[in-house]
Amino acid sequence: MKNVPFKGIIAYPITPFDPQEKVDLPLFKQQVERLVSSGVHGIAPLGSTGVLPYLTDEEKEAVTEASIQQTAGRIPTLVGVSNLTTDKTVYHAQFAEKAGANAVMIIPMSYWKLTDDEIVQHYDKVASSISIPIMAYNNPATGGVDMSPALLKRLLEIPNVTMIKESTGDVQRMHYLRNELGEDVAFYNGSNPLALAAFAAGATGWCTAAANLIPELNIALYNAVQQNDLNKARDLFYQQTELLQFIVAKGLPRAIKAGLNLLGQNGGHLRSPLKPLTAEETATLESILIKLKRQ
Amino acid sequence: MKNVPFKGIIAYPITPFDPQEKVDLPLFKQQVERLVSSGVHGIAPLGSTGVLPYLTDEEKEAVTEASIQQTAGRIPTLVGVSNLTTDKTVYHAQFAEKAGANAVMIIPMSYWKLTDDEIVQHYDKVASSISIPIMAYNNPATGGVDMSPALLKRLLEIPNVTMIKESTGDVQRMHYLRNELGEDVAFYNGSNPLALAAFAAGATGWCTAAANLIPELNIALYNAVQQNDLNKARDLFYQQTELLQFIVAKGLPRAIKAGLNLLGQNGGHLRSPLKPLTAEETATLESILIKLKRQ
Amino acid sequence: MKNVPFKGIIAYPITPFDPQEKVDLPLFKQQVERLVSSGVHGIAPLGSTGVLPYLTDEEKEAVTEASIQQTAGRIPTLVGVSNLTTDKTVYHAQFAEKAGANAVMIIPMSYWKLTDDEIVQHYDKVASSISIPIMAYNNPATGGVDMSPALLKRLLEIPNVTMIKESTGDVQRMHYLRNELGEDVAFYNGSNPLALAAFAAGATGWCTAAANLIPELNIALYNAVQQNDLNKARDLFYQQTELLQFIVAKGLPRAIKAGLNLLGQNGGHLRSPLKPLTAEETATLESILIKLKRQ
Amino acid sequence: MKNVPFKGIIAYPITPFDPQEKVDLPLFKQQVERLVSSGVHGIAPLGSTGVLPYLTDEEKEAVTEASIQQTAGRIPTLVGVSNLTTDKTVYHAQFAEKAGANAVMIIPMSYWKLTDDEIVQHYDKVASSISIPIMAYNNPATGGVDMSPALLKRLLEIPNVTMIKESTGDVQRMHYLRNELGEDVAFYNGSNPLALAAFAAGATGWCTAAANLIPELNIALYNAVQQNDLNKARDLFYQQTELLQFIVAKGLPRAIKAGLNLLGQNGGHLRSPLKPLTAEETATLESILIKLKRQ
Repeated sequence: MKNVPFKGIIAYPITPFDPQEKVDLPLFKQQVERLVSSGVHGIAPLGSTGVLPYLTDEEKEAVTEASIQQTAGRIPTLVGVSNLTTDKTVYHAQFAEKAGANAVMIIPMSYWKLTDDEIVQHYDKVASSISIPIMAYNNPATGGVDMSPALLKRLLEIPNVTMIKESTGDVQRMHYLRNELGEDVAFYNGSNPLALAAFAAGATGWCTAAANLIPELNIALYNAVQQNDLNKARDLFYQQTELLQFIVAKGLPRAIKAGLNLLGQNGGHLRSPLKPLTAEETATLESILIKLKRQ
Repeated sequence: MKNVPFKGIIAYPITPFDPQEKVDLPLFKQQVERLVSSGVHGIAPLGSTGVLPYLTDEEKEAVTEASIQQTAGRIPTLVGVSNLTTDKTVYHAQFAEKAGANAVMIIPMSYWKLTDDEIVQHYDKVASSISIPIMAYNNPATGGVDMSPALLKRLLEIPNVTMIKESTGDVQRMHYLRNELGEDVAFYNGSNPLALAAFAAGATGWCTAAANLIPELNIALYNAVQQNDLNKARDLFYQQTELLQFIVAKGLPRAIKAGLNLLGQNGGHLRSPLKPLTAEETATLESILIKLKRQ
Repeated sequence: MKNVPFKGIIAYPITPFDPQEKVDLPLFKQQVERLVSSGVHGIAPLGSTGVLPYLTDEEKEAVTEASIQQTAGRIPTLVGVSNLTTDKTVYHAQFAEKAGANAVMIIPMSYWKLTDDEIVQHYDKVASSISIPIMAYNNPATGGVDMSPALLKRLLEIPNVTMIKESTGDVQRMHYLRNELGEDVAFYNGSNPLALAAFAAGATGWCTAAANLIPELNIALYNAVQQNDLNKARDLFYQQTELLQFIVAKGLPRAIKAGLNLLGQNGGHLRSPLKPLTAEETATLESILIKLKRQ
Repeated sequence: MKNVPFKGIIAYPITPFDPQEKVDLPLFKQQVERLVSSGVHGIAPLGSTGVLPYLTDEEKEAVTEASIQQTAGRIPTLVGVSNLTTDKTVYHAQFAEKAGANAVMIIPMSYWKLTDDEIVQHYDKVASSISIPIMAYNNPATGGVDMSPALLKRLLEIPNVTMIKESTGDVQRMHYLRNELGEDVAFYNGSNPLALAAFAAGATGWCTAAANLIPELNIALYNAVQQNDLNKARDLFYQQTELLQFIVAKGLPRAIKAGLNLLGQNGGHLRSPLKPLTAEETATLESILIKLKRQ
C-alpha cells in the first residue's frame, strides 16, 4: 500500500510580511496555530497561497521549520518545494525531509515549456533523493505546464510519488485518474470552486486556502461526503461557493490577507508587486463574510 | 411556479438516413420506440445528435410529427427548433407546438457573433409566438456562442423560458445558476462527462444520447442521486464514463449509429459530410460495450 | 499552370434586406455596381459579409444571378456556395457555374466537428461536380473548423481546388503555405487587420468587405505592394487599420450597412437576429470615416 | 526625443553550463565575441534564451559583467533583469546600470496574476531607481501575463520606459502601438516567425536567438527593409522561416545549443530540468542548416 499521509481538508497558510516586506515569522506561527486549532486535517505551507516563488532560499527554510515546530505533529505537514531547476528542488526537498515534513508538494514550474521526459526526470531525481512521499501538483495557471493524465500516470510509477493534486479546474481529469488508476490512487482537489464535484468524483482531500476564513464549512462539507449525504453536502457547498469564487478571482494571498483582517485577525503585509485588495473589493468580501455568519 | 415538464434522463434520438441519405422515418420511429421502452423520462428529437442543422424544413417537420406520434404521450417530448434566423425559429417553434410538443429547445445558433441584446430579442420573439415552455441551450462548441450566466439570467425573465441546458463542460456555470437564481431554476446537463458533477450540483435532468446505448445505467445514476446515495452514484458513474467520453470524442451521431449496430440494432446511415467511424474506432467502441455487458 | 482567376482586391458585397427582411435585389445590384465602378479587381457575393447561411436556397440563387448579371464580365465573380451538407454544396456550386461564376468559394461549415478525411471527401465531391476552380476558405471563427496547413495541402491536390483563403488571423499560416507549396500557390487574405502582413508574405489578393467603404485605400495598398514600395504600403495600411479593426469587431454586415448609410448610400436592412449598430457605435464609425476623408 | 539605444538585430546569447551544470563564463564570453563579430547591432544577455530565471543572483551578476566586458562598447548591451519581486528587480537593474548596461529589459514575471496597477507600480519603482532606459517586454507564453496595449501605453508614460518588445505572436499588437502612440514609439519584435510582418509594420528591431546560427540572414532581412525592398525582404525571410519555426518549437536554449554544436561550435551544457534535443530532433535541425548553407 502506498504511503498517503493526507486526507480531508488540507489548509494553505499564507506567508505574512512585515511593513518592510520581510517575512513575519511570529505572525506566521500564530496563523498556523489558528489553522491547527480549527480542526483541519493537514497543513501545507509554501504553496501558491504562501507565495513560495517570491521567497529566498533562507526564507523558505525558515518558514518550513516554523510550520513543523508550530504544528508539532498534531496534524501532518506538506511542504511546497517547487523550483525551476532540478538541483534547487532536490535541495529544498531534502531540507523539508530533515526538518520533519510528512511529504513534499512539487509542481513542475516551467519558464521554458518542459517535455514529458524532462518532467519525469525532474520528479525522478527529486524522488530518489528523499524518502518521504511526494504530491505531484498540476496547475497550468500558475506553473505554466499542463501535465496530461498520461504523464501523471507515468509520475505515479515513481515509488514515492503517491499523491496527485489537480488544479486545472476540469473535473474530468479526476475521472480519468480514477478510471485509469483504480480506486487506490489518492487524488486531491486544488480548485476551490470544484470542491463538491471533486468529492463526488472521489477525491481524498481538498487543499484549500479557504480554511483560513471558513474552516468549519470546509470540514462540514468533507464530513457530509464521508457520511454519504449528498443533499447535505450540496447545501454546505452552496453556502461557501461565493466565497470560494471570490478568493480565487482576486488571488489567494491578497484575498486571504484581507479576509483575516475582516475577521479581526492580523493578515500581515504582502510583498511587492502584490498589493492589497482595493477598498471596493474589500467591501465585497466583507459582505460575503457577513452573509456567511448569518447562516 | 414555472412550467417545467422535464426531469431525469432525457434521451436524444439520432436521425437515421437511408442509403441515399434521405431521412428514414420508419427506422426513426423504431428507434424512438426503443428509447420509450427503455424507461427514459423524456425524449428530445432534433438536437445536435439528431443533426438538426443538416435537415431541410420539410424533414424537420416530418421528424417532429413522427416523434410525437410514436411517443404518444407516454413521456414528454422536447423538440429542437434552433435556426440561424429568428423568422425560421418562430416558424419551427409554432410547428412543434401545433404538433403537440411539450416544450422546445433553442440554442442561439450563430454565424455572426450575436450581441446579448440580439440574443434576448431572438428568444423574446420566439417565446411570444408560442405558449409552450422553452429550454434555452448553451453549447459554444456547436452553436458558436457562449451565453454568459448573466445572459442566461436575462433569458429566464422571459415568462416561458423556464429551463436552461448547460453544455459548456464547466460545472461552475451550474453553481452560478443555482446561486444566482435560487433552488427553483431548472437546469439540465448536456455535457455527458459531467453527469455526476451536474447531478451533485443539483441538475434537474440529463439530456443525453447515451440512452440509445446504456439507458439502464443512465437511469440508475439518476435514481441513486434521487436516493441521496452518493457512493452508489459514483460507482454507477465510473461504470459509464469511458463510454460517455468515447461518444463525445467521436461525435454523437457517428458514435450512436455505430453503437446501435454493435448492439444488433439498425443504426441507419449518416448524411455527408458525416461519415461512419473507422474500423479501428468501431473496435474500440465494441470493447467498451463488451466490458459494460460484463459488469 | 493552375486556374487562378483572382488577384488584388476582391470585394464582398453585403446582402441588403427590405423592411420586411426580404432580400432587396434592386438595392443589391446598385451596391454591386458601386463596387465595380470603384475599381476593385473582383467581387465575391454570398460570403460571410453577404450572410450566406441566413438565406434560403431560392435567395442564394437570386443573389448569384443578380451578381453575375450586374457585373457583366467586367470583373470576375467568386460565388460563396458553402453548406453544411455535401449534397447542398454540390447543388449550389453547380448552380453558380451554370449562372456564369468564375469560381466558387467553399468553407467547410461544421456543426459536428469534421475529420480531415470528411473534409477532403466533401471538397472532392463538389470539385468533381463542377469544372470552375474552387477557393478553399479557412475561417474557424465562423465555420467552426480550423483546417491545418497539412489539410489545406491535401485539398490543393484536388485539381480544381486552386486557391486558399486564410482568415485565421495568423500570418504564420501563410508562411507555411508558401514554404510548403512553393511560390505557385495562390493564397488570399481574408483577415482585414492582417492586410499588410499578408501582402508582405506574398498573398495574391485580399478578400474584403472594406471595399464597400474605402475601395481607393484598399486598392492603393495593393498597388504599393506591387510597386515594391514597402514604406508607402505601410503608410497606406496605417491609414485604414482603425476602420478595418472596427468593422471586424462589430461584425461585417452590421458595420458595412452602417458605413454605407454614413456615406450617404442606402445600406438596406438586416435580417434578424442581426440588429443595427447602436447609436454610440455608429458615432464611432462616423468619426473614423471623417478622419479618413481628411487625409 | 526618447532615449532608444537599440535598432536592427539584437542577439540573445544563451547561457552555457559546464558538465556539472555550473555557468561556464569563459565559453559564454567566446559566444558573445562570436555574436559581436557577426555584425549584429546589439546584444541582450539574460533573456529567456539565456535562461535568466534558472540562475542565482550571483550567476546573473557574473553574466552581466562578462557580457559588458566582452562587448566593450562595440555594440550596445541590453540586460534582462526580470524578477518575481519588485525588490529583486530593482536590485538587478541597479547592478546592470552600474556594470555599464545601455538599457535593461523587464518582463513582469507573474506567478500570481498581477493587476494593471500592480504592473505599473512595479515598473515605476524600478524605473525611478535607475537612469538608463527600460525595454518593457510582453510575452504571455513565458511570463504568464499578457499586457494589453492599453497597459503598454501606460508604461510608456514612465519617462525611462522607452521601448516595447512584443512577443505575443500577434502582429496586430504592433499595429495598435503604432496607431495609438504614433511613429515615435520604438517597438521591437520578439517573435521570430513574425520577423517579416513586424518589420513591415515598422518595428525598430528584432530581438532574436537566431543570430547565434544565421546572423547574416537576420541582418540581410533588416537591411532589405531599410532599403525599402519588400521583394528582397520576402525572399530572405522565406529562406529562414523553417529555422525560425524550428528553434521556437523546440525551445530556444535547447535549439541554439544544438545548432551551435552542429556548426562546429561549443554549445556547452544545459541546466536541468532542460535536456538536449533528441537525436531525431537534432537530425532535423542539421538538415535545415545544410539546406541553408546551400542557398
